[in-house]
Formats: sequence, structure tokens, C-alpha cells
Amino acid sequence: MNDLLDALCAYKLRRREPFVAIGGGVVLDIAGMAACLYRRGVPFVRVPTTLLAIVDASVGVKNGVDYCCGYTDETYKNRVGSFYAPSACLLDTSFIASQDRRNICNGFGEIVKLALVRSTDLFELLETHGQKLIESKFTPCNEIPDGVGQRVIDLSIQIMLEELGPNLWEHTLERCVDYGHTFSKLLEMVPGVDIMHGEAVNIDGFFCCILSYMRGFIPMETVERVFRCMQALDLATSSLHLTPDLAWQSCIDAVEHRHGAQRIPLITDIGDSVCVSDVTPEELSRAIDLLATFDHKIYGK
Amino acid sequence: MNDLLDALCAYKLRRREPFVAIGGGVVLDIAGMAACLYRRGVPFVRVPTTLLAIVDASVGVKNGVDYCCGYTDETYKNRVGSFYAPSACLLDTSFIASQDRRNICNGFGEIVKLALVRSTDLFELLETHGQKLIESKFTPCNEIPDGVGQRVIDLSIQIMLEELGPNLWEHTLERCVDYGHTFSKLLEMVPGVDIMHGEAVNIDGFFCCILSYMRGFIPMETVERVFRCMQALDLATSSLHLTPDLAWQSCIDAVEHRHGAQRIPLITDIGDSVCVSDVTPEELSRAIDLLATFDHKIYGK
Repeated sequence: MNDLLDALCAYKLRRREPFVAIGGGVVLDIAGMAACLYRRGVPFVRVPTTLLAIVDASVGVKNGVDYCCGYTDETYKNRVGSFYAPSACLLDTSFIASQDRRNICNGFGEIVKLALVRSTDLFELLETHGQKLIESKFTPCNEIPDGVGQRVIDLSIQIMLEELGPNLWEHTLERCVDYGHTFSKLLEMVPGVDIMHGEAVNIDGFFCCILSYMRGFIPMETVERVFRCMQALDLATSSLHLTPDLAWQSCIDAVEHRHGAQRIPLITDIGDSVCVSDVTPEELSRAIDLLATFDHKIYGK
Repeated sequence: MNDLLDALCAYKLRRREPFVAIGGGVVLDIAGMAACLYRRGVPFVRVPTTLLAIVDASVGVKNGVDYCCGYTDETYKNRVGSFYAPSACLLDTSFIASQDRRNICNGFGEIVKLALVRSTDLFELLETHGQKLIESKFTPCNEIPDGVGQRVIDLSIQIMLEELGPNLWEHTLERCVDYGHTFSKLLEMVPGVDIMHGEAVNIDGFFCCILSYMRGFIPMETVERVFRCMQALDLATSSLHLTPDLAWQSCIDAVEHRHGAQRIPLITDIGDSVCVSDVTPEELSRAIDLLATFDHKIYGK
């Protein structure tokens, strides 16, 4: 953050003069916050370079930066940031081919989430073509009909726009796009753990499928269908760090962050969601027991 | 800034939970920026405790914090900040009695400025009662009619509201409230100099009277009338640091900050102003020569 502010100072960027931020989600978020603060706001343009950033950080007006508290020495995820709109966002999907396999799978973590809460169509595209899209890195390939990769990205962004647009400043805190973002935060913050954002979101998202099943919102067949899709996308569905303690602490943090209520999105079908605020530690423990019966790809082993 | 963010983290302040900032302009500005950034914005309440903050930092939605650039090691005034509205501002003028004389005079620096650009009424109140208001520290006193102190504050805030309200995000950069804020910035940044914001604004404001006179906008009688009023308020009207170099550098900085044009407010009468963008180094030198012919209170001696 300070490096970027220093560079803007040294460049003597004027008010109303734009800069261009090219990078993944972390870069775009830091750039957005710096753009908001430098001279109380200069225009900036987002150019996302990862699949995850193309479908996620590229959309919306918010940015978040981790903050290490001087009192507690704890680092809090996205604890500082702002709501600040970019002037434009330039999407070039050919950047995706420059990413390694793991980073592309990571992007699918957020795409699966969007499908689960909003779109059966998108979910079916992932079931049918997900693996090939990973292999081809969204470049033309004989085994996928033309335009499928672009359709996956367009649908994802369309859902994001529809969900974020009417709620830009998050006056409503029950947001289906927060699916997969209740337990993932602490999973990502486990010291020394090697997990990416989309990977953590996916583990959280599958855990929430289990919670949805236990509440009778979806049948076991749906849980298994989601499981197979995630497996095919090479995404882990559990973590050794997902303990009853971490899960309950996540709910406490959610209450703090979502102003006094858990507001945890669960799914009622593939493509539909509801928020609940009455999850108990016992429910979480039973869900973790049930989670353990699946034959997962697991991080943290 | 970080101390405050640390405290908010340690307190575990939730989204939408307010905090109250009690202090002068620097405190209120830092608090406003922290409120904007913590969890991407929590509500905050401003409680100004100085005369300057009551008529200045209390109004409007912007905050500014000095920033030291890591590349150049230079400190830039108000280089970072944001536009972020407080939920409320509580004004208690009895705080003024807790200030020393210099701080109260400092507050009058901004009040004189507001009178010069917008209100003959306010200027006449300052001429008639300014000295007594300083001595009485805005508490009831036999030598001033009831309500004069409150009227001075009300008029000042009313002007601020009228000027800032329609231009909250400064889409218009020609702002009469920037009177006194062209040369004062660098005067305040001279290393080791002991000058307060309102004092610097006043020196700048008188210098701009000289510039106004030299352009034929106001007669010498008006300059002298302003001079007498400032003297009576115990405000310096020049500084040994106000050199042709500093003045010209200030114009260059103004061009950078006011997007490509100087946009320097001058007065055309007491209570009326106009912006100019064609000030030259020669004009500044001649104005400094003329300034030297007055029998000033001077800082920096």
C-alpha cells in the first residue's frame, strides 16, 4: 500500500489523473484503496490478469487489504479498505493462458460458488466442460464447443453484476455472493498454511452443502453431485484445519462482520440460496463428522 | 492513523457500530479517514473541541492526513485522505474557553477568510467584536451583546455549508473557501517552523489581498481595513518564509492539486471573490515587495 502511495507521490500524479492497475485480486484491491486515498481519490482502471480476478475483483466497488493490528499482532483479513469505483475495467481473457493449473483451478473456486447460489446453467457448463477448460486454459480447443469459456466467464460476471449492482455499499448484509466466505476466511489465515482464496472458498462452499443437507434443504444426491463437480475441477473439499473450533470461531467473526447476525448463505438447490443465522457449535461438529465420510482431496495433509 | 485502526481492531468494533471522535482538526481528520477504512467504513461522530475545528473540520465530508513519501522522504500535506461523511457533528462552543489565546486567534484565521470571500456582515462583526471575543473566549461578557459569539460561529458554519454542500466531492475546483490555502500549505511545511494552520491561512489571505489590490480588484483602503482587522485579532500578516521562491512553488503545487490550473481565489470586495489562474513569478515578487511596506506582526523572526 505505502509503496504504491510513495510511487504516486514521486510521480506527482495530479488529482483527476488516472493510473492503471494490472494484476490479480490482491494488486487490484491495493490499487483501489490507494486510488481512493491518494489526494482523496484519483481515477484508476482495473486490468485483472487471473481467472479469479476476472470473475471476482474486477466487479464491484469495494477493495479490502489485510491489516496487522499493532496491539494484538494479529493479522485481520480485509480489515481495512474502501468502497471506491474504478473508472473502467478492461477484461482480456488471454491472460488466463499465462497462469499455472493451480491458479486456474483457484479461479474456478469462485465460479462454482456463483453457480451454486445463482445458476444451474453455469453449474451444468462446469460439470460438462470444467476439466477441459482447465486443461485448455480458456484457449480454443477441439474438445470444447466455441465460446464455452467465454460463456462461463460472462455468466459469472453477469451474476456478480446482478448481485452487487443493487447493493453496491452493502446496505443489505444477507448476500448470496458471501456463500463460501464464512469459514474460508479463518482457513486462509491459519499461520503457514498454503491455501489460495478460491481453494478456501470451495472448501467452505462444500461444507455449507453439508450444512444445507443436514437442514433438509437439499438431498444427498445434490451434495454428491456438487462433490463430483468440485473433484473434477481439482478443488479440495475439506481441510484438516476445518475443526469445530475454527468453524465456531468463524461464526463468531461473521456476527461481528455482518453486524450482529451470522447471515450464513446455504443452498436450497443448485442455483438457489437462503441465509441462516442460528448455526450452533453442535451442528458444526456434526457437519464436520459427516464431511469426514467423503473421499476428499484434502489440503493440509 | 495506525494507532486508531489498531484500537478499533482490538475493540473488535463491528461494521455499522459508531465511534465518537473528540478533538481538534487533526484528530477529526485522522478519525474520519480511519472510519472510512476500518471494515470499509463504520459510522463516526465528530465532536470538535477548538474554535478552528468548530468552524472548519466540523463541516463537510472530507478528511486529509499528511503523508511522508518513502522515496523522497518529503512530507506532503493532506496527501492522503477520503471523502467520508460523519453520522453527526456535535458542536459545544463551551470547549473554546479551554483553549489558550493563540489557539483561539488561530481559529479566527479561518473565520476572517470566510468573511473576506463571502460576508461583509461577518467581517463587520469581527471588526467590532473580534478582540473582545478573543479575550472572553466566547463566554458571556459585559462588553459584547448577547449572542455575538454564537452569531460569528453560526455565520461561519452557514457559509461553509453553503459552499461545501453543492460541491461535496469537489467536482468544481474553483472554490472560494480555498482562499488563503494556496501559499499557506508550503508556509506550514517549512521544516521546524512554529506556525498553526489558521495563522498560515491568514498570512496567505493577506498576501492575496495585496495580489487583489495589484490587479485593481480592490482599493488600498480595503487592504488597509483588512490589515487593521487582522492586527486586532492578533494574527500575523506576513512571514519571513514567504519568499518569491516559496510563492511560485506554491503556484506550481496548486496547478498539480487543482488539476492543471492555479485557480487561486482573490477578493473583489470584502465578501466577494474570483479565481485567477495566470499569476506569474514577477507578480508574486512585486506583491512580496509591497507586502514588506506594511508594519506587520511577522512569524519567523
